[in-house]
Amino acid sequence: MDAYKAIVTKRDTRAYTNQPIPDEMLQRILQAGRMAGSSKNTQPVRLVVIRDREWLKEVAECGKFSQPLLGAQVGIAVCCAPDGSDFDAGRAAQNMMVAAWNEGIATCPTSVHDQPCIIEKLGLPRGGEDPVTGRKGWRVVVIIALGYPEPSVPMSMGRERMRIDDYVHWERWVGR
Amino acid sequence: MDAYKAIVTKRDTRAYTNQPIPDEMLQRILQAGRMAGSSKNTQPVRLVVIRDREWLKEVAECGKFSQPLLGAQVGIAVCCAPDGSDFDAGRAAQNMMVAAWNEGIATCPTSVHDQPCIIEKLGLPRGGEDPVTGRKGWRVVVIIALGYPEPSVPMSMGRERMRIDDYVHWERWVGR
Repeated sequence: MDAYKAIVTKRDTRAYTNQPIPDEMLQRILQAGRMAGSSKNTQPVRLVVIRDREWLKEVAECGKFSQPLLGAQVGIAVCCAPDGSDFDAGRAAQNMMVAAWNEGIATCPTSVHDQPCIIEKLGLPRGGEDPVTGRKGWRVVVIIALGYPEPSVPMSMGRERMRIDDYVHWERWVGR
Repeated sequence: MDAYKAIVTKRDTRAYTNQPIPDEMLQRILQAGRMAGSSKNTQPVRLVVIRDREWLKEVAECGKFSQPLLGAQVGIAVCCAPDGSDFDAGRAAQNMMVAAWNEGIATCPTSVHDQPCIIEKLGLPRGGEDPVTGRKGWRVVVIIALGYPEPSVPMSMGRERMRIDDYVHWERWVGR
């Protein structure tokens, strides 16, 4: 699919079918995250990919609004280093979600409200060091739910966007 | 360009030619930002698009490492509401940067270190309210520099990525 079409037609989608995600598609999605740029190329993001659906349901208990994970085929926990920014996590996540949609796979990021819960369950480095960067104390920014979209559930319900003239200012914000 | 190809070949690029960016391309880039999803569809992001290159140089003074803006054709300040997350700002920014690359336009996000400086220059709402959401006190997360890539400067210098096996964990982080 053309990149522009994939970007503007992607909607965060919460209901999925039971069709599994092929491994080669999942690999492309992960590669899309890996290739996202980051501040000074510090690469503060890591992924924990959860394919065991019973385990994914247990992990979902760390979030208040993680229903999308209960029906997802795969969950991808987007982890960020303590000195990394959520902005860079968002870049990697969006790359993965657009790459998924390019394969016909729907996604939804779900927040993780209980960080001690998720850090414990996923075994994120706390006192220990990441072997690549030596950073300590990681967090989970979101868990992305992935699956083929359930056709009986409208994808875009309530997902309207503001007018482009409200979204964009030219040269300066003042004077609106 | 295929979405996957656009995503994995995009590199943050700091040097640009003097070729202007056509209006219709810029409009598609802005639309890509607008269509990015956000937490509960709260849409916490707004853009200030700077096409006046002298004005862009003045604006660049609010950042320590904003050299890319000095040679850019356009700057897009990605603004975020006080209760919005940098994660959602990253989603919108990545959408725009991939959509730009799909048109052959290179980009680089630049940090804005002096927030009072940029808030003053761009006239972001402080005490006042945003007319759409009623939120107060906006910030600039990054300014994206845009331009056609300068061919004499290698795009990917120093932009290596870690190995996929270091980037991805399966089921749990523990045990590595």
